[in-house]
Amino acid sequence: MLVENCKVVHWCVRNEYVKGAIEQRGHNPTYLTAVNFNLKNLKLTTDINELVSACEVIVLATPSIYLSDTMEKMTVDSTNKIFVSAIKGIIPKVNDVVAHYLRDEFKIGFRNQAVIAGPCHAEEVAMERLSYLTVATVEEEVSTKLVNIFNSDFIKMHSSKDLLGNEYSAILKNIFAIGAGIASGLGYGDNFTAVFVSNAIREMETFLEAIYEAPRDVNESAYLGDLLVTAYSLFSRNRNLGNLIGKGYTVKSAIQSMNMVAEGYYAADSIYKTSKEKGLKLPIVDTIYSILYEGKNAEKQFKKLTAKLD
Amino acid sequence: MLVENCKVVHWCVRNEYVKGAIEQRGHNPTYLTAVNFNLKNLKLTTDINELVSACEVIVLATPSIYLSDTMEKMTVDSTNKIFVSAIKGIIPKVNDVVAHYLRDEFKIGFRNQAVIAGPCHAEEVAMERLSYLTVATVEEEVSTKLVNIFNSDFIKMHSSKDLLGNEYSAILKNIFAIGAGIASGLGYGDNFTAVFVSNAIREMETFLEAIYEAPRDVNESAYLGDLLVTAYSLFSRNRNLGNLIGKGYTVKSAIQSMNMVAEGYYAADSIYKTSKEKGLKLPIVDTIYSILYEGKNAEKQFKKLTAKLD
Repeated sequence: MLVENCKVVHWCVRNEYVKGAIEQRGHNPTYLTAVNFNLKNLKLTTDINELVSACEVIVLATPSIYLSDTMEKMTVDSTNKIFVSAIKGIIPKVNDVVAHYLRDEFKIGFRNQAVIAGPCHAEEVAMERLSYLTVATVEEEVSTKLVNIFNSDFIKMHSSKDLLGNEYSAILKNIFAIGAGIASGLGYGDNFTAVFVSNAIREMETFLEAIYEAPRDVNESAYLGDLLVTAYSLFSRNRNLGNLIGKGYTVKSAIQSMNMVAEGYYAADSIYKTSKEKGLKLPIVDTIYSILYEGKNAEKQFKKLTAKLD
Repeated sequence: MLVENCKVVHWCVRNEYVKGAIEQRGHNPTYLTAVNFNLKNLKLTTDINELVSACEVIVLATPSIYLSDTMEKMTVDSTNKIFVSAIKGIIPKVNDVVAHYLRDEFKIGFRNQAVIAGPCHAEEVAMERLSYLTVATVEEEVSTKLVNIFNSDFIKMHSSKDLLGNEYSAILKNIFAIGAGIASGLGYGDNFTAVFVSNAIREMETFLEAIYEAPRDVNESAYLGDLLVTAYSLFSRNRNLGNLIGKGYTVKSAIQSMNMVAEGYYAADSIYKTSKEKGLKLPIVDTIYSILYEGKNAEKQFKKLTAKLD
């Protein structure tokens, strides 16, 4: 998408092997290998400082657990750069969201930040199937610039002023997807899943209203749509983690059986603690936390939860 | 459910064959044959007048297109009876909802009516998988009585004061399910479906707010949950009708290829007209109507619709 819209796109990749492979073959050797890049407009590097110096807008798209490793190598001046987060998870090192991490550790203010949100399976984007993205910024000027960078025939861009709300909602949906997976693993059916999701979106609203003031309707695509795509997708890592736990795996063995820790696992800890600090009543978050971190029995906890849903 | 909670349940069935089969074999010969009834508490009849005379509460559960045939045979006094509609469709004869039909044709006032709503595939209820139902009434006293009649280990009942809102929402969701089916038939993916559904729930809210004043949150199970179960279910007749149209069948041949007309087909006509009378802007309803009733091309209409969603 970016290579088609921008004259030059700098891309900082993990190591020299990935860089060489893309430069030689024109596609990523590991992920979405069917997507071919126009190499003429693409400048690859493994050096974050080279990238930051050369760019006005920096899109962060590592898994949340690796962001700090990358960012800590940044020594060049990042004043007046725009940092766009496409990450949907908690930074374990600080147990906080990306927006707070960038502000507190790197003095990148909210005005120089953006969040990309929306129901957007990468696999479908790669197939150029129509998808909608929301770019959330404090400054309208920044959002207009970003909309133009991302817009295409198969991506419709919308803008939002709810920077933190969009980031938190993308994180919360991963916790709820673990819950939908647990329910499915325990044998609950489609009727229950629909009730679960309609309670989850209301919990999301309660949380967002308590955490960040901004104009929002949680039934917009970036909130409800993103929750739906994750909770109903059989490909979601978070849903799969929950499914294994529901089927009787211990949390530890469920995590070990997956190649990669699901983002929702870390999120549950951080969001639970934040909700307690704020005195919020979030029965689904409480239930997932008790199963993931307090060793509680999933079947019993869900039985109790069913009495709190409506 | 009713036979377990009530000493006597009267059941008016279609004809003597069905009556005899149930009495002999203890289960319905055609539908959900695995469900066995406790015949001791069950009194079968084919005479609506016998049933109405004997009962305080009458649950209407025919397909919407057959309700008028049944009700027109009612000659006995129905004053002080409670009529509970489990029907989710428009009565073609009057092109209106059940609540209006009962009030206008039989002088059954809203105070003597109730609507049952919620995400509740009959197949899952038959398997005793946990489901949630909402009973909507004007009078709280009536709702308390009905909650007790329907409650069970696997059905959680909630009450609502939004009688007409619950009826209309159950009807609207069938139109949206046709739309989800068309999108899928045309090749749109999960990302788009999530955006479509999050726009649909906002259209539902717009419609309900214009039509009936009552306390409601459209993210409750009876509204959003019911929409989700229908729009995401591959077993929904409405979704299947849409899917055929999306794949290129004409509306006529799509309808003919199904054993039974999907409720959403009639609903689209009635809801479209009501929305125009009220001056509402409902792009999804307009799109479905144009495809079903104005012979418009599904692919082109959906292409136009995508520009109106967000």
